[in-house]
Amino acid sequence: MTLSPLAPDHFPDLPVIDGVRFSSGAAGVKYKDRTDVMLAELMAGTSIAGVFTRSATRSAPVLDCQAKLGADQSDRAALLVNSGNSNAFTGAAGERSVEAICDAVSDATGISTARIFTASTGVIGQRLPHEKITQKIEELVESLTCDGIEGAAKAIMTTDTFPKGASAELTIDGQTVRIAGIAKGSGMIAPDMATMLVYIFTDAKIDQAPLQALLGALTDQTFNCITVDSDTSTSDSLICAATGTSGVDVTESAGFTQALRDVMLDLAHQVVRDGEGATKFVEVRVTGAATDAEARKVGLSIANSPLVKTAIAGEDPNWGRIVMAVGKSGAQADRDRLTIRFGDIIVAENGWVSPDYTEEAGAAYMKAQDLTITVDLGIAGGMGTVWTCDLTHGYITINADYRS
Amino acid sequence: MTLSPLAPDHFPDLPVIDGVRFSSGAAGVKYKDRTDVMLAELMAGTSIAGVFTRSATRSAPVLDCQAKLGADQSDRAALLVNSGNSNAFTGAAGERSVEAICDAVSDATGISTARIFTASTGVIGQRLPHEKITQKIEELVESLTCDGIEGAAKAIMTTDTFPKGASAELTIDGQTVRIAGIAKGSGMIAPDMATMLVYIFTDAKIDQAPLQALLGALTDQTFNCITVDSDTSTSDSLICAATGTSGVDVTESAGFTQALRDVMLDLAHQVVRDGEGATKFVEVRVTGAATDAEARKVGLSIANSPLVKTAIAGEDPNWGRIVMAVGKSGAQADRDRLTIRFGDIIVAENGWVSPDYTEEAGAAYMKAQDLTITVDLGIAGGMGTVWTCDLTHGYITINADYRS
Repeated sequence: MTLSPLAPDHFPDLPVIDGVRFSSGAAGVKYKDRTDVMLAELMAGTSIAGVFTRSATRSAPVLDCQAKLGADQSDRAALLVNSGNSNAFTGAAGERSVEAICDAVSDATGISTARIFTASTGVIGQRLPHEKITQKIEELVESLTCDGIEGAAKAIMTTDTFPKGASAELTIDGQTVRIAGIAKGSGMIAPDMATMLVYIFTDAKIDQAPLQALLGALTDQTFNCITVDSDTSTSDSLICAATGTSGVDVTESAGFTQALRDVMLDLAHQVVRDGEGATKFVEVRVTGAATDAEARKVGLSIANSPLVKTAIAGEDPNWGRIVMAVGKSGAQADRDRLTIRFGDIIVAENGWVSPDYTEEAGAAYMKAQDLTITVDLGIAGGMGTVWTCDLTHGYITINADYRS
Repeated sequence: MTLSPLAPDHFPDLPVIDGVRFSSGAAGVKYKDRTDVMLAELMAGTSIAGVFTRSATRSAPVLDCQAKLGADQSDRAALLVNSGNSNAFTGAAGERSVEAICDAVSDATGISTARIFTASTGVIGQRLPHEKITQKIEELVESLTCDGIEGAAKAIMTTDTFPKGASAELTIDGQTVRIAGIAKGSGMIAPDMATMLVYIFTDAKIDQAPLQALLGALTDQTFNCITVDSDTSTSDSLICAATGTSGVDVTESAGFTQALRDVMLDLAHQVVRDGEGATKFVEVRVTGAATDAEARKVGLSIANSPLVKTAIAGEDPNWGRIVMAVGKSGAQADRDRLTIRFGDIIVAENGWVSPDYTEEAGAAYMKAQDLTITVDLGIAGGMGTVWTCDLTHGYITINADYRS
């Protein structure tokens, strides 16, 4: 897999989160010559919140995690994730695999299965050869280390071309609070979560209920605002674990909310930058809509339009397709009030191309790697932003032959 | 443009519809060395019904046609269509172009502008050079002929690789009724109509109001059940003109309804077969849904999924992606009640792959050019069928560089 041209230079230095240890290994679930399983151990008392796909065909591990949220948190906890096989649409066998993995982690760590969260990502519909994972667990437990997060980020990759990490440090009342997160995902990415797995760790102190509420609200502003191909996975999982070791209560902290949002948005953007076949990162800003919800609807209509995305791939400033996407969105719009901008360039206004716009200026703008398309609907004050990438031959190549 | 591998062998022999004459010509709106404008003249008394895009940014000709439906029909009528430029998002200039064309047709034919319907298809946002069209109108009027329908079908093509026509003849009370239709469209095709122009002519006798009702109902079962790329045009127009010259009143005729539906479905399928880059024609049948509307929602979720469409392009029997598309559709579904078939092959049932299914059988099936995917949700009796094509490198090639 060629590295995405939109990849960052290197994996970021993530702070160590006190109370969390990681390990990763090669279980050979599907891939050869790479790691494909990660374990995270969380100290006793860690609050665990989660947001999961709403797919009607969600996977066995997702259903298991959802059932376990909000359990008594006096015990330690563990996260066990494998790549290569999603254990989705695998019938009763899928549930047995989750059980077998949880039992093995519990046996090796002494952690109750009620506090063991698993996830699987990869091909749908093939039995998970969970014995390959369970026989690796002793080794994973023995190699747990507080600075193993980069290895964990690598072990959960599927068609990703780079591991994804982001962090924040903030000072509250003179004390430092740290957040470190990792993510995987590059195709089947759409709102309502994506084929995304995201794990965020913090030493902040916050109860499970407010952490869950915060995570849900921030997911709507971050991961649910990105789209690669409008497809939604059966396995999407986002877990945030707060160990509380900093001693700083962040329950009412606007600073923590902002920092967590920044980490989530950074990871979400990295997922788009690793979109299958992506060569352009595109921010679609919609303003002047009847409501925020309508703005988002228009944004997603643009960001999911194959015709808009292929035009961007071809560096073609084909703003007519943006008009089309606004028109089909179902949101309230008026041709004559619409303003479209590429970056700072006003392309269209008053129901037609802007008198100052030139095709040359538009074409020159489209050559950039990071693009901003702004649409003002001129109706009212609703606004929203979504992020996407272009649709290229690379996407077809990757997806027309993924399984063989 | 290479001919679609799914194209029919030849343009069908369409019956002459008494009371309709056609002509076509090369106005040079955008294309060189081909025809790009068609005129149809309809005898006095012809009932004209129409269904149009619901896009919020629909084009000036669409708005004009919608305003003219239901006018007094004692006069003759005319249809004037150009390809190469859609006259959409062209501000007030767009309306002036429609007016200029209608005036020119009226001057040359003596038909009132209230009975002149225009359409334009092609690039969005560029001023329509309507003077190129108006100066051709005398010539078009002079060359009107009752057997010019194939030429008309060719003149309205844009990225189409073949002209599309379909017909039916039926006998009612010993008398023959004829229907002949043409269509264009190959990209930006999605429910709520497509970048499609469809013109259907019949010598049946039926008033405008019942014809309008019939056309709307049949559009929902035909053109609104196809999707190439989920994008919806600003120009979609379907017009059905009934001259009444057969003398047969079809207002209550089930046979006529069926024949008109057959013609519409045939044209709709031809549009899919000419889908940009298409190499496979796919019928998606959904049964067992909570309601017919839910069945259609699931069908469209499958038919619009880039991951399903690229798998089909790669001849990959990746049924896991169908499970994903069912799950994300928002319709009521239950993993364990789902049955998926490729043709007659049961692929998945009872929440997992079928015990009799082999990857070899699935892969062999996927090599066919025409595919049927059946999904039974096992919930209730709702059903629906949609038609689509695969998503290939050809689609990217065509659309990443359409304007230049």
